[in-house]
Amino acid sequence: MTARVLVPWAEMAIPAELTAAVWDGNGTPPDDLDDVEFYVLPYDQGAEPVNLIPRLPSLRAVQTLTAGYDNLLPLLPPGVQLANGRGLHDLSVAEHTLALILAAQRFLPRWFAQQRTGTWDRAHTKSLADSRVLIVGYGSIGRAIERYLAAGEAEVVRVASTARPGIHGIAELPTLLPTADIVILVLPDTPATRGLLGAPELALLPDAALVVNVGRGTAINLTALTAEVSSGRLRTALDVTDPEPLPPDHPLWPLDGAIITPHVAGGSDSFYPRAKRLAEQQLTRFAKGEPLENLVNLVN
Amino acid sequence: MTARVLVPWAEMAIPAELTAAVWDGNGTPPDDLDDVEFYVLPYDQGAEPVNLIPRLPSLRAVQTLTAGYDNLLPLLPPGVQLANGRGLHDLSVAEHTLALILAAQRFLPRWFAQQRTGTWDRAHTKSLADSRVLIVGYGSIGRAIERYLAAGEAEVVRVASTARPGIHGIAELPTLLPTADIVILVLPDTPATRGLLGAPELALLPDAALVVNVGRGTAINLTALTAEVSSGRLRTALDVTDPEPLPPDHPLWPLDGAIITPHVAGGSDSFYPRAKRLAEQQLTRFAKGEPLENLVNLVN
Repeated sequence: MTARVLVPWAEMAIPAELTAAVWDGNGTPPDDLDDVEFYVLPYDQGAEPVNLIPRLPSLRAVQTLTAGYDNLLPLLPPGVQLANGRGLHDLSVAEHTLALILAAQRFLPRWFAQQRTGTWDRAHTKSLADSRVLIVGYGSIGRAIERYLAAGEAEVVRVASTARPGIHGIAELPTLLPTADIVILVLPDTPATRGLLGAPELALLPDAALVVNVGRGTAINLTALTAEVSSGRLRTALDVTDPEPLPPDHPLWPLDGAIITPHVAGGSDSFYPRAKRLAEQQLTRFAKGEPLENLVNLVN
Repeated sequence: MTARVLVPWAEMAIPAELTAAVWDGNGTPPDDLDDVEFYVLPYDQGAEPVNLIPRLPSLRAVQTLTAGYDNLLPLLPPGVQLANGRGLHDLSVAEHTLALILAAQRFLPRWFAQQRTGTWDRAHTKSLADSRVLIVGYGSIGRAIERYLAAGEAEVVRVASTARPGIHGIAELPTLLPTADIVILVLPDTPATRGLLGAPELALLPDAALVVNVGRGTAINLTALTAEVSSGRLRTALDVTDPEPLPPDHPLWPLDGAIITPHVAGGSDSFYPRAKRLAEQQLTRFAKGEPLENLVNLVN
């Protein structure tokens, strides 16, 4: 079998059965794309890569490197397979989640403040080890977080929308929150998740509990959380907020018990090697005539 | 068998065969210690717990919760077994090591600085995933660090004083350093480790490599490291320095590429549960007449 594939990286393992053209999404696409059957979209290059889709008459499959794909559905011809990039950011988000938790437990804000004044003043810190950690919204990111927590000898309690073996349902949150040292939210923004942690739920957490959010800001009532952190009763480490960006004068920014990062959990160097690996695996499957992974169910 | 044991915590699982007295190292020890056969020394309570040893005429075994024990050797009667607390701080040190690495890779100093001014300014960060990490001084702490790094999909290269299967010898460092994204030093202070990373060795590291030290500060020539970080070529995250404390006017403190914590890796809440667990396991062995773990070879 000979086919043409269009890929975003020149440095890539291409199966011998395939010939590849390269376009990284910048400038003009290559000429002569009439026989391109498999198209790996460049990542984060705006609308141009998507607009190329209707100009590929031999197209049989499209691979995105994002989890979302709504933007290209209007341009996808009937019968063309679509595979998405779900999971490619999981490890990056898990890594940032651990960075937030360890920063809070091991007092990094205190040490960084001391560093600014050249102060060497020691103190005993909290630890992640032995902490009871609720992962609320347990899915592929949660599993990546869990591997880290297991290495750190923390106790993991899994919570998802509905209970299944080994995983608590979200309805059990009122009985789980009072037992948690750390709560990690990894939830999408849906009507069911909005305001999940409001004042009544936060009040159920034990003193000094750490509230972490790496999903969507809307899951937490930020006014209620700010009140609990301001009083010194709870601590928080947030990569997402509601509203977002967090306004410069928001009272959460300067609080001792708050760590805030500007929605950067998914955007790290861990993405590209995983994106390239997925693309290479999909090209191999395509060359062998095997079904693609991460196929999106399309109702054309 | 009935015996008396002296332990530092009232809340402890004591085997049924034993009866326990409790002393946490504060105030006067209990009266009537004539039949104490097993003594678990209170942790970090100065010289008093050690000075009690000669006042226990039935003593057969002493358990310390520290790795070091030189201070009590002069007071230990001949024939009394000594077990130490090696390993109890391993996870705490590993956890802090990960905190340092993730802080550097995920740009926490930048986000914390932005937090001080209420600034929400996003950027793509480095990652731990896929990094090639040298653990120099691979032992029980290194194994605990490695479990974290495996969860984070980093590549681990083990280095110890002498090569053995799966572990490089320290003599190979000149060929290993040029391949490292991150170097973690977990070394004691010995003549062989002093100045291990000086200007020539640091020059072998690739640009932007991260130098982490959680062992003893003397392993790094701090003047040479400061020059490399000051020029922006290398980054560092140190929990130990030479000299220590780091003087307030040391030029490393204010550098962008430097993270400094004041020798706090071992001192976290993860210690006490592990110390208590070790003590409970040793009491069980003692009650059953089994050999103790962590026995120190004594030449009395």
